[in-house]
Amino acid sequence: MILGRLNHVGVATPSIDASIAFYRDVMGATAIGEPFDLPTQGVRVCFVDTPNTQIELIEPLGDTSPIRAFLAKSPAGGQHHVCYEVPDIHEAKAWFEAKGARVLGEPRIGAHGTPIFFVHPRDMGGVLTEIMETPKEAH
Amino acid sequence: MILGRLNHVGVATPSIDASIAFYRDVMGATAIGEPFDLPTQGVRVCFVDTPNTQIELIEPLGDTSPIRAFLAKSPAGGQHHVCYEVPDIHEAKAWFEAKGARVLGEPRIGAHGTPIFFVHPRDMGGVLTEIMETPKEAH
Repeated sequence: MILGRLNHVGVATPSIDASIAFYRDVMGATAIGEPFDLPTQGVRVCFVDTPNTQIELIEPLGDTSPIRAFLAKSPAGGQHHVCYEVPDIHEAKAWFEAKGARVLGEPRIGAHGTPIFFVHPRDMGGVLTEIMETPKEAH
Repeated sequence: MILGRLNHVGVATPSIDASIAFYRDVMGATAIGEPFDLPTQGVRVCFVDTPNTQIELIEPLGDTSPIRAFLAKSPAGGQHHVCYEVPDIHEAKAWFEAKGARVLGEPRIGAHGTPIFFVHPRDMGGVLTEIMETPKEAH
């Protein structure tokens, strides 16, 4: 596997609306998507474009959202994960498993509409890592 | 201010050597710089290239390194900060101060040889944020 594009940095937030205002008014973001629910992941998400990558704002959706535990520790939010692109999600899963890294569940459709999985931070230098198949029409 | 390039994601590690092996052998990085000391910041750093940005590996340097407190909480390491580029470091400092964000100290020379400062995570949605003047010859 060759290291792919950093598709986004995932940033947890207690309020996507407040974070959108922050990225627009303080950080100077000029391209901010519409927030949308991703019920299968228990998150509401919103992408903020930077010139070379994106910030994915993630807010808890539902009582069992995995973001709730993160916000319990860090109520103001913070860096949650990084996401790298791969050309083939199944080859990537086999690669990480062969390296002894714990892939968290089967590939599923992520926020960009292509298959994704997460790899356990304990096997990734403490960094929760999302692996995402590159959208076919992108870049 | 307009949101600039994400220059890098800073990742704290107890061992740059072990992290280099991880990024090379597990993540598939093909361009990894030479580690070097940045004594004024109390860190040893190493840049790992991705196709569109960089990972900055940071290891504590010296007993008073600010990375020691981070590793005391997260011994395996993890996401430490994000760094955005700006065209003019002094204009950026004035911008953030006018927004009420706490700039941590005066601009100083960072790992890429241009002036940088950090902004307090409490004013940045929980994200420790480095602001870096774009190298003149870059991109």
